[in-house]
Amino acid sequence: MNRLPTEIRVTLPDWLPRRLSAAGPCATEAERMRLVIGLAREQVERGTGGPFAAAVFERAGGRLVSAGVNLVLPANNSALHAEVVALMLAEARVGSYTLHAPHLPEHELVTSCDPCAMCLGAALWSGVRRLVCGAGRADAERIGFEEGPVFPESYRYLEAHGVAVVRGVLADEARQVFDLYRERGGAVYNG
Amino acid sequence: MNRLPTEIRVTLPDWLPRRLSAAGPCATEAERMRLVIGLAREQVERGTGGPFAAAVFERAGGRLVSAGVNLVLPANNSALHAEVVALMLAEARVGSYTLHAPHLPEHELVTSCDPCAMCLGAALWSGVRRLVCGAGRADAERIGFEEGPVFPESYRYLEAHGVAVVRGVLADEARQVFDLYRERGGAVYNG
Repeated sequence: MNRLPTEIRVTLPDWLPRRLSAAGPCATEAERMRLVIGLAREQVERGTGGPFAAAVFERAGGRLVSAGVNLVLPANNSALHAEVVALMLAEARVGSYTLHAPHLPEHELVTSCDPCAMCLGAALWSGVRRLVCGAGRADAERIGFEEGPVFPESYRYLEAHGVAVVRGVLADEARQVFDLYRERGGAVYNG
Repeated sequence: MNRLPTEIRVTLPDWLPRRLSAAGPCATEAERMRLVIGLAREQVERGTGGPFAAAVFERAGGRLVSAGVNLVLPANNSALHAEVVALMLAEARVGSYTLHAPHLPEHELVTSCDPCAMCLGAALWSGVRRLVCGAGRADAERIGFEEGPVFPESYRYLEAHGVAVVRGVLADEARQVFDLYRERGGAVYNG
């Protein structure tokens, strides 16, 4: 008898929904990124996981649809990068396996760092029409995190498939969270 | 008040654990792939989702650790490709965010089709030391599925990071499942 596992449960840390329960719309790109970097910082300060956060917003108006932080360490799950968590939760909220559907407004993914290879693919499949990134690949690598097989063509592929990409938004603030993570001796799980 | 979603639950279709409850070790690569293609076929026959399956095995001896099928449609979750499901379940079973740890045997991921960009990244982060693929990218595209930004360098990147890659194992049998899916009018969710 092989008792295979059959269920996975993904749960956000308690502090996150509490922190965002009063979050209003974020009109500008900077406001959206600041919210996301704030989550990454709180994640590091509370020691609940890797120094990354992401959120899905409605493109027009900036309504917050979902937010995620990196749960690799607390959940023992290497796929639960912040972007994947935020995208899964957004799709659950709208009840659709794509955020790009005729009955839905356009959505964007805002992430505190350039996505890794997995998350770049996940962003494409999610149907977000815009990807906004804070810190860069080199910043993640500087504190020991790998980003995997992402190439300039990878971003061009997204653009060619209707996903606008904006990088380097509030990059200094995002990098400061990485520095804090390193100062606190945070674990690197894919170096 | 913004009532953000906070939890995701991922559950395999009922038939899958039943089917595998008596699964013994699969000594050879062909046996492992045949088990995986059988899951993809049953998934199509039962109409429980996309025509893809994957499983994680211990490399030496072929003990089945976890198995997954594509759950994008039934779960409304674009990240739940068969590979991601199988890898998440394997990590849950061993209680580690990496399958490549000193206290663990080596693992491999066997998938009925070349992984998409997301799953290729997920395979890298999971710590599997070998990736075995059935049908190819062109086969998936022929029935309308996109694979995303995967390039020859992507596979080389995995190899350079210690993940052996074997492609085209029982590819004809894997393709027949795609043909069946198309004949039955199965939905394409990322074309």
